[in-house]
Formats: sequence, structure tokens, C-alpha cells
Amino acid sequence: MGEPFILINCKALSEGMGNRAHLIAEAAETVAEESGVRIGMAPVYTEIHPVSHHFRIPVFAQHIDGVPPGAYTGHVTAAAVRHAGAVGTLINHSERRLTLAGIEAAVRAARDARLESVVCTNNDPTTAAAAALGPDYVAIEPPELIGSGVSVCKADPGIIRRSVEAARKVNPQVKVLTGAGIQTGECVKIALELGTNGVLLASSVVKAPDPEKVLRDLVSLVPATRRVG
Amino acid sequence: MGEPFILINCKALSEGMGNRAHLIAEAAETVAEESGVRIGMAPVYTEIHPVSHHFRIPVFAQHIDGVPPGAYTGHVTAAAVRHAGAVGTLINHSERRLTLAGIEAAVRAARDARLESVVCTNNDPTTAAAAALGPDYVAIEPPELIGSGVSVCKADPGIIRRSVEAARKVNPQVKVLTGAGIQTGECVKIALELGTNGVLLASSVVKAPDPEKVLRDLVSLVPATRRVG
Amino acid sequence: MGEPFILINCKALSEGMGNRAHLIAEAAETVAEESGVRIGMAPVYTEIHPVSHHFRIPVFAQHIDGVPPGAYTGHVTAAAVRHAGAVGTLINHSERRLTLAGIEAAVRAARDARLESVVCTNNDPTTAAAAALGPDYVAIEPPELIGSGVSVCKADPGIIRRSVEAARKVNPQVKVLTGAGIQTGECVKIALELGTNGVLLASSVVKAPDPEKVLRDLVSLVPATRRVG
Amino acid sequence: MGEPFILINCKALSEGMGNRAHLIAEAAETVAEESGVRIGMAPVYTEIHPVSHHFRIPVFAQHIDGVPPGAYTGHVTAAAVRHAGAVGTLINHSERRLTLAGIEAAVRAARDARLESVVCTNNDPTTAAAAALGPDYVAIEPPELIGSGVSVCKADPGIIRRSVEAARKVNPQVKVLTGAGIQTGECVKIALELGTNGVLLASSVVKAPDPEKVLRDLVSLVPATRRVG
Repeated sequence: MGEPFILINCKALSEGMGNRAHLIAEAAETVAEESGVRIGMAPVYTEIHPVSHHFRIPVFAQHIDGVPPGAYTGHVTAAAVRHAGAVGTLINHSERRLTLAGIEAAVRAARDARLESVVCTNNDPTTAAAAALGPDYVAIEPPELIGSGVSVCKADPGIIRRSVEAARKVNPQVKVLTGAGIQTGECVKIALELGTNGVLLASSVVKAPDPEKVLRDLVSLVPATRRVG
Repeated sequence: MGEPFILINCKALSEGMGNRAHLIAEAAETVAEESGVRIGMAPVYTEIHPVSHHFRIPVFAQHIDGVPPGAYTGHVTAAAVRHAGAVGTLINHSERRLTLAGIEAAVRAARDARLESVVCTNNDPTTAAAAALGPDYVAIEPPELIGSGVSVCKADPGIIRRSVEAARKVNPQVKVLTGAGIQTGECVKIALELGTNGVLLASSVVKAPDPEKVLRDLVSLVPATRRVG
Repeated sequence: MGEPFILINCKALSEGMGNRAHLIAEAAETVAEESGVRIGMAPVYTEIHPVSHHFRIPVFAQHIDGVPPGAYTGHVTAAAVRHAGAVGTLINHSERRLTLAGIEAAVRAARDARLESVVCTNNDPTTAAAAALGPDYVAIEPPELIGSGVSVCKADPGIIRRSVEAARKVNPQVKVLTGAGIQTGECVKIALELGTNGVLLASSVVKAPDPEKVLRDLVSLVPATRRVG
Repeated sequence: MGEPFILINCKALSEGMGNRAHLIAEAAETVAEESGVRIGMAPVYTEIHPVSHHFRIPVFAQHIDGVPPGAYTGHVTAAAVRHAGAVGTLINHSERRLTLAGIEAAVRAARDARLESVVCTNNDPTTAAAAALGPDYVAIEPPELIGSGVSVCKADPGIIRRSVEAARKVNPQVKVLTGAGIQTGECVKIALELGTNGVLLASSVVKAPDPEKVLRDLVSLVPATRRVG
């Protein structure tokens, strides 16, 4: 299952930890298998190990530091999250910004450890810049929409279109995710129509009383031609 | 087992991850039981869960952010490490410095989550300042000695004495650990004689071919009166 | 004129730059001379030189980095601001937080360059910690009141009382300023009655159509016994 | 005088402050006029005002924060340095790294304030990324050469060639400066031959007993065709 990709960021939300992390992981596994849409999950660091050992879903770290193994107390290395079972990582999320040199080092560290990298950006110039670093994905999250409950696709499809264009112009290989405000299957459909390869979302799934139901809605309008199997 | 306390910081060292983390944890468990000296371990975040579930040793996080559960992607909350099995945490290690407001928030978050807190400092004024925040421990690591292979106790016992005095004057309840350059039982003995309650160390145990042998030497000169039954 | 002390932080407000910086400096000079109350001003770095050369008021930097002269591009050294004419500096303002080690280094650098230091803090534990570093002043600014238009003295005199007590207990020499929400002479009067040595304020003077009028009100209720002849 | 461009970064070096800043500025003015090569200078913030008022040279800030005028204590706005007389600014120097979002905001703030922007980078991917943000210049400083006394042109012309190519591919308008280890006219000549538009340097001029002599050497091999009449 390569695409489209729905990536659930659990942040440090209490609704995404412990039993809830397992509930969400199970929902992701179930809906991914049913729908042929790839669904991944980025739990807190301490849950990467248990989640990736109990569920057949792609587990992502929420952040890595682009440092090698060594004297880096409190840092998160690509090797450590890989060893715990992660297959990818967010980098430069709006809640965990890095320097440009740090992003580049993290993308490189991810590549060296065979982790997929998703670099988060906030507008079209930063999307173009991130694309120049050669990550697997760039995820665009306009800051004014984060946590607003307003979908980026409805509020401002222009920024998504311009960002896709800017990213592809710099690096045609890079895939793009739409972030900020994704809540329904309609949002996912629009995100795909705008040329992106999926979505990055958080509270709409993580805080949902029934995450499986929300996930089932999110994949509902993905064209059959873009599903696996 | 309250005291003295030997705390092993695995940093992001490759010699402290995976099988090696288990080997060190097992050595800590064995030597602690034999000697009546408390021995703890701070592995990378992703290993807190497996280490604390497989070994009877106090597991510490290497860092926490003093934020509540919520929209804090890539952050490490007290709740998350507590849930994974940690009983304490380092705060403000020299490789992961925090703002003063951040240290205070982290000490408070640790206390609220019933985690022991070990705030790292670099000289006697910062030790006094850290003590004023009311953590369980302050660990003094003079920056010029970190990773130097020179024990702080031999190089400059004055800084330890002054720091203990400064900390106690501000807050008589706070316990003090000696960091930087601890390598042998002789260092531990001097650290205790200087009035500290134990040591914080890393490479001398983590990189050792035989961590159990090093730990056995480290506890060898602890007076019988300071060991637990 | 030692005390009480009114310190005007111009931040990066457009109303505190250029001609407005000169207008405010002139008002401070006039009202200080009239009233016998010490009034200082912290303009942006680039205005330290012109303001301190044109007005007889104590000029403060808004921040310094505790680094020695050297390869520190973009940093602000004690030597540089001293050379430009500053006599003191804010350190660790809520809009420019430093690590604990950084605050300690900055306080020390200020002392070595004969600059007065004003360390900003956010609650009573951080006030006690800052006092332990031995600055000239600690300025308490409860974050929930900053820019709220609610005076800390009226909203929560308890935090000021506790902070003064906490600071004095750790270091009886340290002076305390009340920050956040100071707007009138009544606020200044209460701040002094609570045991602090003055106030740190910003927008109420900087954004005022007539800064001189506001300053005249601010000093109006300072007891004659606390003014300089 | 557009090009080539020699930009002298005074850092926080004591040899670049006060009288020395004036001496260097005077040397830059003299040699620029003689040679038809553009020579700029980035002094500490507090010297932007006096240097730009006393000398006819382009003065740069060493850093700006991409924030608007407002409640940003201790920050450096484009407006403030512009008002003090600067015509440009370094951004993201290796000693003052910014987040990607911060660099983008700073480049935009510089453009809005009609300041030339020079974004510093550390390798060819980050050079491409910086070029995508549309600054006037990107300055490449391989970290292993900074302060080494080894010229990047001699040590590793490949990195300069690749960076020029990477930058031009992403954004043909962007100009490139060579940093790290530039000491002689020979270095400047090679830097220009490699396709860059000038050099960014520091200690070789700032610490020189006779900066004018060093500057005269630096411009000595610039082809007549690239000088301004």
C-alpha cells in the first residue's frame, strides 16, 4: 500500500496514549486492510515500541534529531526509533521546529536509517525549500488553520496548489501531504484532487469517541483506482 | 534502597541501546541486589517501556518537557514516561538545556506525576538556583570535565563542596549527585565523603565491555552503614 | 537616584523607535529630574548608542548573551552594550528566554562589565532561583498578566508578596521589580508597599500619546521619603 | 558597485568593535573607492548606527528576526536595523541558526524593509533550500572549514561548485558568496572563478593589524572587467 497515505499524529494528546493508542492503532489496521488505503500513526516516543510490536501499521516517530548515536542526552536518533519499530518520522512539525541545518541532517539521518521522512512546512516558500532537501514527503500545514477546525482544502485550496507546484518544480520526486483541519472524507478527496498524496491529521481522529468510524469516513471517497488490492 | 544512588545515563550511545541496554539493566539489577546500593538507568525514550517491564531497576527518562498532555508534537511529557514505566527523570542535562521557566515547569510536572527529578547544573550558582526549584536531586557536572575522563572529585573537589553547600543553604531537603568523570569506586567514595548522595555517570559504565564488573567496582567502597540491609 | 526604579521596556514596538524613542527618553529625563525617582529605558539595541549619547537617563539593553567577545555572530555582548552607553540590561525577559546556564553566564558577564542586571521571572520558584544567581534585580512578570491590561498588584498581590519573600530568603541583597500590567501611580504605590523596589513596564508608557503625562502620573504617589532630594 | 561583493563580518570580536570598527570601515571605504569592488561590513548591532552615519559603505546587520514591530523584547527587527542605517543583513549564520520558518520570515521581512538578505548555509542541500526562499545572496560556509584558516576554495572547490549549481537550479536569480577561510586575493579570485559573486569573511580582516592592507590584497586579483569604473 503506497498511496494515498493518511498519517495520524497523536501529538502528546492524552487521548492518543496508552489504551487509546492501541485503540487507534487497531482502527488504523482494520480500516487500512478493508480499504486498501495506507494508514500510519505517529505515537509518542515511548509507545513506538509497543504499538509497532502489536499492530501491522506503519509507525512513525513525531520527530528525530539529525545526530548520530553518541553523547546526545535526551535526543531522539533515527537508529533508536528504527530499532523500536518505526518505519518513518515527522520532521520539523510546527510544534517542534528545527533549524534548516537540523532539518537537512534529520532528513539525511532518516534516509541512512531507511526511515521515510515527512518534513512539515508552513507556506509555499518553505515547502519548496523542504523539497530541495529530498525528503519522501513534505506536509503543508498553514499555521493559521492548525487546530482551527477549518480544513485547509476548503479555506484555501490555493496554498495547497501553489505548494504542490513549488515542491514539484524543485523536486519532482517529493510527495506532498495536506495538513491542518482535515476532518472528513470530503477533505481527503479534495486533498487528492489538488494533487497531494494524502493527509496528515491529528485531533479529528485522536480525539474521536470512535476513531474507526472517523477513519472509515476519511477513506470513503478515495477513488477505487487509487486503492491497493 | 534510597541511597547512595548511582544513576547511569545511556545518552544516545549505541553501546546503551537494544541488547546492550538490556545487558546494562541486568548488571544494574544484579549489583544493586548484591550491594544494597540503589542503581538506576536512563535509557533512550523508546527503551523506557521494555527496560522497565523486564528489569527491577528504577528507570529514568533523560529529559521531560514541562508541558501538560496536549498539542505538543515531539515533546516528552511526564505522563508519557510515567506510563511507560519510568520512576524519575533527568532535567536540563548539559546536552539538553532548558530555559529557567522550562526547568521549573518540568520539576513541577515531574512532582505532579510522582516522578523523581534530577536537575543537572554546571557550577555552584546554577546549583543554588536549581535547588530553589525544589527538585529531588541536583546533579553537578562542571562542563570542563564532561567526557574528559578526569573525575570531578579528583580534579576539583572544591566545586563539589561549594555546590553542596550552596544547594543546602537554599534548600536543605535537596539531594546532590556528583557528575562528570566518575569512573571507579574511589570516585564514588570521594563523592559521598564530599557530602553528595551519589553519582551520575555515563560512558564509564555504558561503554564498558563488562558493565557488571564496572558497577561492582563502583559500589565496592560504599561504607556498609550506607547500604540497605 | 537609587530608588524606586521605573524601567521602561520599549520592546520592538514601533512606538518606541526612532523619534518616539527620543520623545520617551526626554520625558523620562524630565520627570526623573522633577520627581527624584529614577527612570530608565531599554530601547532596541540599535538605539542604545544615540539615546545614551543624547539623554541623561540610565539606558538598559533588552537582553545580553553571556558570551565573551569572540566568534558569536548576531549575539549581544555585555562589552558591546556597555561600549554603546548602556548601564544595565534585562536578562531572560519572557519574550527572550534563556537557559539557566545562559542566565547565570549573562548575570556574570553583566557584573564583569559593570552593568546592572535585571533578571525576569514568571513565578515565585523561578524568582527564588534567579535571586540565587546574584543579579541586581529580579523582575516578576506573571505570564497570565503580561499585556492583559490588568495590574499584577491588583490582580494578585499574593504572587508579588511571595516572590519578594522567596527572593529575599535566598538572597537578601537582591532588589525586586514588579512587572506586568503597571499602568498608574496607584500601581506603583502598591508595588512599593508590597516590598518591591520599583516597576518594569512597557506599553502603558511606550504606546501613550503623551509619555511624559503617564510618567508624571506613575511617580505621583511615590512617598517623598523615597525620593532623592 | 554591484559586484563582486566582499562582506566583512565583525562577529562579536573585540577587534571589530569601537575604534577598530571605525578603522575597518574606513579601510573598506578607501579600498572600495580605489578598486571599484563593493566592500560591506556587518558590525555588532550597537555599531550599525555610528558606522553607517560616518562611512560611505554598505552596512549589514549580523542577524534579524523575521518578526514585525511589536512585543518582541530583545529581538532585532528589519525596521530597527534599517532605521539605524543598515542596507542588508546576514540571516542564519552558523553562529546564529534559525528555524526554516524563521529564515523564510526573515528573508521576507528583509525584502519588505528593502534590506539585502544574505542567507548562510552549510552544504549543498541547504544551499538549494535557502535559494528556494528567494534571498539576494546565499553564503556557503562548510562547517569543517570555519575558523580553520583553510580556504574553502583550496580545500574543497567541489562543494562550492555543487552549491552554486544547486542554488542556480532552484533559483537562477540568487547570488552566491563563498565563506569560510577566505584570506587572500588568490582565494577571492578562485571564488569568482568557481561562479560565486563574492566572499563572506571575518577574522582575516577583522583581526588583521592592518585591515586596509589585507583588503587591498583581497581585491588585487579581481579582473578589471568585474570592477566598477
